Amino acid sequence: MSATVKVGIVGYGNLGRGVQAAVSQNDDMELVGVFTRRDPSGVVLAGDGAKVYHLDTLAEMKNQIDVLILCGGSATDLPEMTPRLARDFNVIDSFDTHAKIPEHFAAVDRAAKAAAKVAIISVGWDPGLFSLNKAYAQAILPSGTDYSFWGTGVSQGHSDAIRRIKGVIDARQYTIPVEEALDKVRAGENPQLTTREKHTRLCYVVVEEGVDTEAVTHEIVTMPYYFDEYDTEVRYISAEEMKREHSSLPHGGMVLRSGRTGFAEENTQIIEYKLQLDSNPEFTSSVLLAYARAACRLSQEGQCGCKTVLDIAPTYLLNKSAEDQRSSLL
Amino acid sequence: MSATVKVGIVGYGNLGRGVQAAVSQNDDMELVGVFTRRDPSGVVLAGDGAKVYHLDTLAEMKNQIDVLILCGGSATDLPEMTPRLARDFNVIDSFDTHAKIPEHFAAVDRAAKAAAKVAIISVGWDPGLFSLNKAYAQAILPSGTDYSFWGTGVSQGHSDAIRRIKGVIDARQYTIPVEEALDKVRAGENPQLTTREKHTRLCYVVVEEGVDTEAVTHEIVTMPYYFDEYDTEVRYISAEEMKREHSSLPHGGMVLRSGRTGFAEENTQIIEYKLQLDSNPEFTSSVLLAYARAACRLSQEGQCGCKTVLDIAPTYLLNKSAEDQRSSLL
Repeated sequence: MSATVKVGIVGYGNLGRGVQAAVSQNDDMELVGVFTRRDPSGVVLAGDGAKVYHLDTLAEMKNQIDVLILCGGSATDLPEMTPRLARDFNVIDSFDTHAKIPEHFAAVDRAAKAAAKVAIISVGWDPGLFSLNKAYAQAILPSGTDYSFWGTGVSQGHSDAIRRIKGVIDARQYTIPVEEALDKVRAGENPQLTTREKHTRLCYVVVEEGVDTEAVTHEIVTMPYYFDEYDTEVRYISAEEMKREHSSLPHGGMVLRSGRTGFAEENTQIIEYKLQLDSNPEFTSSVLLAYARAACRLSQEGQCGCKTVLDIAPTYLLNKSAEDQRSSLL
Repeated sequence: MSATVKVGIVGYGNLGRGVQAAVSQNDDMELVGVFTRRDPSGVVLAGDGAKVYHLDTLAEMKNQIDVLILCGGSATDLPEMTPRLARDFNVIDSFDTHAKIPEHFAAVDRAAKAAAKVAIISVGWDPGLFSLNKAYAQAILPSGTDYSFWGTGVSQGHSDAIRRIKGVIDARQYTIPVEEALDKVRAGENPQLTTREKHTRLCYVVVEEGVDTEAVTHEIVTMPYYFDEYDTEVRYISAEEMKREHSSLPHGGMVLRSGRTGFAEENTQIIEYKLQLDSNPEFTSSVLLAYARAACRLSQEGQCGCKTVLDIAPTYLLNKSAEDQRSSLL
């Protein structure tokens, strides 16, 4: 393994494109190739200088790749792909089905340990950086309450749910944190907040001509789990406006912990971590790449098995010596 | 070493009191004793259930203590104390003279390695949690700018500087971040900010009768390094008002990184970490205690030498199994 981290990207959607862009920002990284299940000749890369290969050629390129970044989906791709590829490579994924992380961890851990590879799963911001910050804050303030807010940003899952309604051509759903609720938390009031009090949902929808928009609105705002517990606003716009105004994928959010210290727990201490992202997929890709560096270093140290962001010391993420880190960051 | 972390506190000022209070919030922690250079009979503890010993008795209690938390000052106490005590104990300190951290690290590392002990230095929030967050943010967004703001909070150093002026009885200096500057950073404007544009300083001062307050004000606002580069306001108050309104030690601050991602770096991504603390020393104490837990675990794993917060994976800080951490935090 050389000083340069040789990266392979598996899957080329928004996330894969983001990883490709991020590699060019890190001068210790090199992109070996993009691997796809599609016909490679049909995949047009957004940036220069990389080659596209069929996923089946991966096995032959084992010795040319230090770490694979798996850019598939959590529903069906990653549960199968991460443990399989961990048998031959150090791997990173962004598996984000929260409830299934323990199960995924166990499967990946078995594969990675048997092959003496390092796998880091559930990397990104939620799960990922939000998890980290909850961990630090809970460790420091054992007596306290956690709050999470998401947005303002596009929820792909909610947008897809609207798109499945008959007569809907396109939709974009923004999750918006309620400022009054946030203000109460920041003021140390320790409020008990219902789902409705924390977020509102704003939907931009393009419909076919002649569709009964009142009926569509009713179907959206009463949709169980997705919308029924929220105050939801629906706005109908043209396909042109959708393209012009709602093509990017901003997101973000905040995790806060409001804790108490002192012999009588008389002092309030508030820790807040906030992300404000123009591009959700590009940010997630950048997190994946930082942890890819860590996976290589851990592997070089002889470690193996499945890890999460909770298991990685910050020093492993940086392209800087430990001495430089201490003198510039501490 | 037992499942309970047996803690010793060295030094009993604001920080030592904070550690004592924090121990009672962590059910895996036990306070063995407070160790002081003063006559132990003259030290009155703020909380119940702990004993005060003279520092000289520490050597006899080697086997009863898992980790020592050193609550001395960075100017003269810790440079001598941390390396000396690391010869017999796992130790944690909050050494915060930024420029001298590499030197302190080297001295402590030599001692701790020779004795096969773990030492974690410069623990707290700045250096400490702010360093961590800069590390994560720089690793994720290699192309970007860091911003640090402090306050609103009491700066002990600046308060002390005013107290040294002839005719001044007491003083409290608040550092206040400039909202307009913060707003520009949060809006992704990447401003270049001078010292004066980032913070203002507000001083409450009690003077002796008959003192020329205009002269004192002039001496404060022109004081090199401490005040001359800032817009400073000075308010004269009574000793009673000082006691009533300015006895607590709030502090806090924000570190932000404004970075760019994408093939043309066209997207702005902003990471913000914010602390809002009613009690600066109690919060620092709580951070020290979380890292004390980590030091014990690392020592049990057979590690040794000097570490900083950059070297510690978050998992070591929590009083929770790795499985519980994954299912509750990820």
